[in-house]
Amino acid sequence: MSKLRVESFTISLDGFGAGPDQTLNNPLGVGGESLHGWAIATRTFQQKVFGGEGGETGADDEIAARGFKNIGAWIVGRNMFGPVRGPWPDESWRGWWGENPVYHAPVFVLTHHARAPLVMEGGTTFHFVTDGVAVALERAREAANGKDVRVGGGVNVIQQYLRLRLIDEMHLAIAPVLLGAGERLFEGIDLPVLGYTCTQHVPSSRATHIVLSRQQAR
Amino acid sequence: MSKLRVESFTISLDGFGAGPDQTLNNPLGVGGESLHGWAIATRTFQQKVFGGEGGETGADDEIAARGFKNIGAWIVGRNMFGPVRGPWPDESWRGWWGENPVYHAPVFVLTHHARAPLVMEGGTTFHFVTDGVAVALERAREAANGKDVRVGGGVNVIQQYLRLRLIDEMHLAIAPVLLGAGERLFEGIDLPVLGYTCTQHVPSSRATHIVLSRQQAR
Repeated sequence: MSKLRVESFTISLDGFGAGPDQTLNNPLGVGGESLHGWAIATRTFQQKVFGGEGGETGADDEIAARGFKNIGAWIVGRNMFGPVRGPWPDESWRGWWGENPVYHAPVFVLTHHARAPLVMEGGTTFHFVTDGVAVALERAREAANGKDVRVGGGVNVIQQYLRLRLIDEMHLAIAPVLLGAGERLFEGIDLPVLGYTCTQHVPSSRATHIVLSRQQAR
Repeated sequence: MSKLRVESFTISLDGFGAGPDQTLNNPLGVGGESLHGWAIATRTFQQKVFGGEGGETGADDEIAARGFKNIGAWIVGRNMFGPVRGPWPDESWRGWWGENPVYHAPVFVLTHHARAPLVMEGGTTFHFVTDGVAVALERAREAANGKDVRVGGGVNVIQQYLRLRLIDEMHLAIAPVLLGAGERLFEGIDLPVLGYTCTQHVPSSRATHIVLSRQQAR
């Protein structure tokens, strides 16, 4: 069955999934880029995200690559799509990723403000969903056509799906950095009560990778 | 100069340093034992804590062993000393560790309830300090006679010393388990603001070891 997955989501040693004060120049918040050193080094990210050559193979890369396999649709929060807040002033913001975004699949953007779908190059279409996480998942599953749906983030979106026990598998990387402030991924989340256990643990020199899985039937 | 160090303190993936509901049979709270799998496997813990033979060598053991080096005194919270709460009903509780405790050094126990020092076998004496963490540190430093002071825990005691910027080095192990509830080590603690950075990162198959150090002058 089609799964709902979180992949390559990185948190700091002190548990933050993003730094504070996201802006156009700091899409991940202050200090947020330091989280992603492990990913940026991989061949998968160098090729898929930056469109270049090179990058490292190994444990980090294998896990990053797995995160892109069998994904038929994405769900992201509005802050992952861009720095614009409130009603859309116009159609000019088209995401952080240029005209050919990294997704190459339908992306469902959670927002309180309606907007027409945005068709990009390379197979990515951004759909703006104003009816909440459950509807977004329903539409994403349909679009994924049997493949899995990947939740890109951010913290608040992942928390909403965790609380609803809808995430089947969550790969997290714990990076050896401290952020001190920002959004804490597990704030108010009791993972064992929600049915999650740690089913994989792959340490690398750049991060500790863990997979949390739901065992019980929903 | 004599340092104040935290060593081999383990937290869960979701950031808890102990499980909830500590009792006589669950000194580490519900689920707390699962945190310490990495330590229990080491030769250092097998010999120093359990008084046996065997145990594994390797990265986990090297780090555990380092934690016992150059330690002249310890500071622990009352809940680490035992499950008794409120005024001491009598002198019968003598710690979790039998007549020859693992410390072999003066141990300063933070408590709100005075009690005469307790002299054990093997060089351990428990001193009960009712004047707070600063006085406990002063007395421990004096007793350590130039060696370092190790803070054993628990979470609340470490938090108090962190907020006062008094801890020089903190070795934490992040164990691949979820606790879901309990005491969160970094709750309300902004480590970068307090002057800490991650200065060492040693992943092993059983845990991720990190050392946080204070860089700035106090």
